[in-house]
Amino acid sequence: MSQINVNFNNLNQFISDSDFANLQEKINLAHNDLHSKTGRGNDYLGWLDLPQNFPVDLMQRITEATERYRKLYDTFVVIGIGGSYLGAKAIIESLSTPFGEPKSEVIFAGHTLSSHYHSSLLEYLKTKNPAVVVISKSGTTTEPAIAFRLLKDFLRTNFPNDYKQRIMAITDSSKGTLRNFADMEGYTTFSIPDDVGGRFSVLTPVGLVPIALAGFEIAQLVEGAASLSVDTETDLEKNQIYKYAAARYLLHEQGKSMEILSYFEPRLSFFAEWWKQLFGESEGKENKGLFPASACFTTDLHSLGQYIQEGKRNFFETFLTVAEQPHSLKLKKEQFNTDKLNYLEGKSLDFVNQKAFEGTAEAHLEGNVPNLEIRLSHIDEFTLGQLIYFYEKAVAIGGYLLEVNPFDQPGVELYKKNMFRLLGKPS
Amino acid sequence: MSQINVNFNNLNQFISDSDFANLQEKINLAHNDLHSKTGRGNDYLGWLDLPQNFPVDLMQRITEATERYRKLYDTFVVIGIGGSYLGAKAIIESLSTPFGEPKSEVIFAGHTLSSHYHSSLLEYLKTKNPAVVVISKSGTTTEPAIAFRLLKDFLRTNFPNDYKQRIMAITDSSKGTLRNFADMEGYTTFSIPDDVGGRFSVLTPVGLVPIALAGFEIAQLVEGAASLSVDTETDLEKNQIYKYAAARYLLHEQGKSMEILSYFEPRLSFFAEWWKQLFGESEGKENKGLFPASACFTTDLHSLGQYIQEGKRNFFETFLTVAEQPHSLKLKKEQFNTDKLNYLEGKSLDFVNQKAFEGTAEAHLEGNVPNLEIRLSHIDEFTLGQLIYFYEKAVAIGGYLLEVNPFDQPGVELYKKNMFRLLGKPS
Repeated sequence: MSQINVNFNNLNQFISDSDFANLQEKINLAHNDLHSKTGRGNDYLGWLDLPQNFPVDLMQRITEATERYRKLYDTFVVIGIGGSYLGAKAIIESLSTPFGEPKSEVIFAGHTLSSHYHSSLLEYLKTKNPAVVVISKSGTTTEPAIAFRLLKDFLRTNFPNDYKQRIMAITDSSKGTLRNFADMEGYTTFSIPDDVGGRFSVLTPVGLVPIALAGFEIAQLVEGAASLSVDTETDLEKNQIYKYAAARYLLHEQGKSMEILSYFEPRLSFFAEWWKQLFGESEGKENKGLFPASACFTTDLHSLGQYIQEGKRNFFETFLTVAEQPHSLKLKKEQFNTDKLNYLEGKSLDFVNQKAFEGTAEAHLEGNVPNLEIRLSHIDEFTLGQLIYFYEKAVAIGGYLLEVNPFDQPGVELYKKNMFRLLGKPS
Repeated sequence: MSQINVNFNNLNQFISDSDFANLQEKINLAHNDLHSKTGRGNDYLGWLDLPQNFPVDLMQRITEATERYRKLYDTFVVIGIGGSYLGAKAIIESLSTPFGEPKSEVIFAGHTLSSHYHSSLLEYLKTKNPAVVVISKSGTTTEPAIAFRLLKDFLRTNFPNDYKQRIMAITDSSKGTLRNFADMEGYTTFSIPDDVGGRFSVLTPVGLVPIALAGFEIAQLVEGAASLSVDTETDLEKNQIYKYAAARYLLHEQGKSMEILSYFEPRLSFFAEWWKQLFGESEGKENKGLFPASACFTTDLHSLGQYIQEGKRNFFETFLTVAEQPHSLKLKKEQFNTDKLNYLEGKSLDFVNQKAFEGTAEAHLEGNVPNLEIRLSHIDEFTLGQLIYFYEKAVAIGGYLLEVNPFDQPGVELYKKNMFRLLGKPS
């Protein structure tokens, strides 16, 4: 059963029933290309069936290794960039509380070239009992490779007797320099499947190992995704993933150039970052695609809100909302009603937040911004697993509708090529 | 002397010298409207001269009050939303290290309606010796008013003897319910100038009190801003603030609908959020303006990079770079050159980061993305003060070029109106 419900009502004046119906045939073709693995980028469709076929022994190996690490060490530095960073960070932040000690500390590195960042990290680690997880398919991506040099050196200096046991590598199953080096050094290793691209890899060891190190239920994440992956309904009126993909495509065809993902829970902010990579990299090519932006409400109603309400009308908005919350702070009556809030006596903050969402959706519609709502029943591993799969499948179908390859990222190479030339890298 | 240098070279193929020259007259008019205070929104121009005329006694009062608080308490919860939140957070994050204990802890609240966020905060504060700074001009803005109820209640319960001394209020100088209540309760108070709007208020007590509580040199911030505010040069070839405003306007006229602020230092991420409010709220009205987006590189080159390189061509990019860094991590030679990085032996991470920037600017130009660079000599209070003033003045001129009022935000009201109706607020 899906923990996700999509409400398309605020699109009614922009997309008619017949617009959707006319797209059904194209949706069927995209569905067939995807499931028969005959479409573009069909070498990278491993994510499609992996959740329902997730190898039991792999799940067990991850659980055992991460439990062992959690007993031995207190801080885990995860080295990765792009898909080797955003998925794990998204899930960990979505499931964590913002203040106080985490179950166990997971820190990310290798996603920036800042000295300031890495200097501060190395200083901090002197007070900790750390382990390192390096995630890189090739082992030669500049940012994570540099961070791994720094952290390997740190471990070798500070823990000369057992530093190799403190390193876990998640890399290619057989080729690549990191695989060879990890095997030579005797690190604990996990493999990145050949047929899963970086931005689709959160439900492989790439995401699951760091999430398990943070203390969360990775089996539930995979199960959530698996519960959606068995649905092969193609009727747009019955498959809300496809209807979301269809709505995005129709709005793109109408000339919209941006989708804003707006959410009302601050802990979803890195989930939005993960979404931005998934959609921006999958669709942003051949001068096509929707630029993925995000906003945290109500915070950003006092920032981007003005533009959304009255700026250029070239975007639409998708609200990501949550029905039930684990906490319920209620407002009390006060003797001096100076802030004029006594009318909210007995109401919870979440009730106010929900009304803020409803008022915002209505206001933005009035401002001529097409909008829709993706509503989660609550936030836990199972539901986030569903949401991951929801978006992965939506962007795959969306890419096929746009007639681009949703699984490549040719535009990421040019800055690297230029950088290597400027750095004088030997060819 | 300006610590900021702007490089417009990568705009050459999009904006000609004569395009700039033809705009000079309009720039002169905007300049005159601004400095003679005859343009739209001229009730809100207090920020223009405040830095150079900053009252000595006010600076002293802020310094004394915040030093006293820093001796008495260890954690400061700052309650505010929009301009009463972003400016202080931007400066504090830009000047802090990401790991380890801060000089003193400043936490923000009242910028979200999430129960999860505030429950976690209240739980955390039980282990601390906290004080609260509430920032609201009226005292009735929903989000901060709710947070203030929760935190006032927390202090009253946990520190019954001295809870009033633990509260500081930054509010209107004479009217408004928070002013009355604060005076009645005997809180330490500071005033928000009548002629400075929220998003321009970081160099008033609104931003300066929290920044001083975090342990940074607020006098230097103001001095930095003041050093730019005395410049009244209008020639586009001599005033880089005006040339930046002109370039943005010309690109907007060419049909660009978005500016992406891309930076290479993660600690600038909230500076980018501050910038998004400043520009989005000032310009995004009457169906005009550039949507403000941001990207942290090289991180997001592995996320938004693909779209920027090859997606729709309806935006331009402004790089915010930093010449000198306080730390210098260098790469060492390794015995096994498995990551193929030995060619970088002796090079610093910042050198690599700089080459990544240069390679990116070149790649995006090749991808037909107009771009420019705003380069800071380094990051400190004085330089950030200059940068704040740089952007404030640029957006004021930019708003006048667009023929909108850069100092209002009429579109922020509608969601509130709807929310109040849905909450059943008595009229």
